[in-house]
Amino acid sequence: MVSESDTRCLPPRFGAAFQAELETLLAWRRDVRRFRRDALPAGMLEHLLALAELAPSVGLSQPWRFVRVASPEARAKVRTNFAAANAEALGDYAGERAALYARLKLSGLDDAPEQLAVFAEAEPEQGHGLGRRTMPETLQYSTVCAVHTLWLAARAAGVGLGWVSILDPESLGADLDVPESWCFVAYLCLGYPQEEHEDPELARRGWETRRGDRPLFVTR
Amino acid sequence: MVSESDTRCLPPRFGAAFQAELETLLAWRRDVRRFRRDALPAGMLEHLLALAELAPSVGLSQPWRFVRVASPEARAKVRTNFAAANAEALGDYAGERAALYARLKLSGLDDAPEQLAVFAEAEPEQGHGLGRRTMPETLQYSTVCAVHTLWLAARAAGVGLGWVSILDPESLGADLDVPESWCFVAYLCLGYPQEEHEDPELARRGWETRRGDRPLFVTR
Repeated sequence: MVSESDTRCLPPRFGAAFQAELETLLAWRRDVRRFRRDALPAGMLEHLLALAELAPSVGLSQPWRFVRVASPEARAKVRTNFAAANAEALGDYAGERAALYARLKLSGLDDAPEQLAVFAEAEPEQGHGLGRRTMPETLQYSTVCAVHTLWLAARAAGVGLGWVSILDPESLGADLDVPESWCFVAYLCLGYPQEEHEDPELARRGWETRRGDRPLFVTR
Repeated sequence: MVSESDTRCLPPRFGAAFQAELETLLAWRRDVRRFRRDALPAGMLEHLLALAELAPSVGLSQPWRFVRVASPEARAKVRTNFAAANAEALGDYAGERAALYARLKLSGLDDAPEQLAVFAEAEPEQGHGLGRRTMPETLQYSTVCAVHTLWLAARAAGVGLGWVSILDPESLGADLDVPESWCFVAYLCLGYPQEEHEDPELARRGWETRRGDRPLFVTR
């Protein structure tokens, strides 16, 4: 462990034990759908969001915007949005695949004690436009890096996170009354998980398997 | 440290020492532009890419596609692409900001021993479409999670990574002769960094500062 004074003065050296534990963290991360209803400890959400601020961002623009969805009214709007998108998605499948889809638990909206809607500011002054002229989508990509940072920090603290994407992104921004320049990226459920697994829920439920049989890269 | 057998049988518990070192990793990650030219150890790239496969992906689709850009011909095409995009970007600035832009080192293309172009497969069979009906961009977002996983694993191993986005994404796919269904997401330079810093290069060079003065979230 590196003490705080060391991190300010010296580049840290990460040893084999830390690297192995980081790999364990990556292997056990999980996209959680089954939450206990007890609240997170006071200050936990703020601590995790402060760590997310350390994520990389194009031009150092920090374009992520987090909305804590707390009121019953706001949560009801999100549930309605999800129910409509999920019903339409179910209609895309037939036969066994439809039955399998219907049995999947695809959100933790009813139980997760903390819920965050995450947006990217599409026209941030911060960063002075650097690095996004040809690829404006790097603002959303930076926001995804903040989400993933939050995800890993949460899991390291024993907190599960589930990313819900079965939502109409256009109406969600209106549902939550955010500025029009905010582009919806992700809806996150956070809380202590009911169970912990090394394999993804979608693999356990027979939807899809993690593939390890294709080459890691092609060469040019 | 959790042994391999433990990770298969028991949910790991991450202690305070690991959490503190993870925070140090996040704080010292950096977007590296100044690389030493010496090669990475044999097997290092493959190890890091195998860890990137553990990233979250929509519907367990694993849509990321990595191209190792190794030949002089392929690297020359990337440099030409970058030079054109960078010259156009410089034209957007005037006065002191233009002079500052011109002094920034915005890529490590000439020195980084390993370079990866990262794409998202826009129509993957894997995942059966789950979770991306209303938000097809989650395929790119999943790919960003793989990039960020690679980034953190590399930094933990002492390897620096720099994400170059000043590129024409359409022509880069053609430059590298990849399938038309592959959407360009990121160009990564990897190698040992010349220097290590806790503050971002853009902050050190006076382009932008990391902001800590706005609220971490708004509430609805």
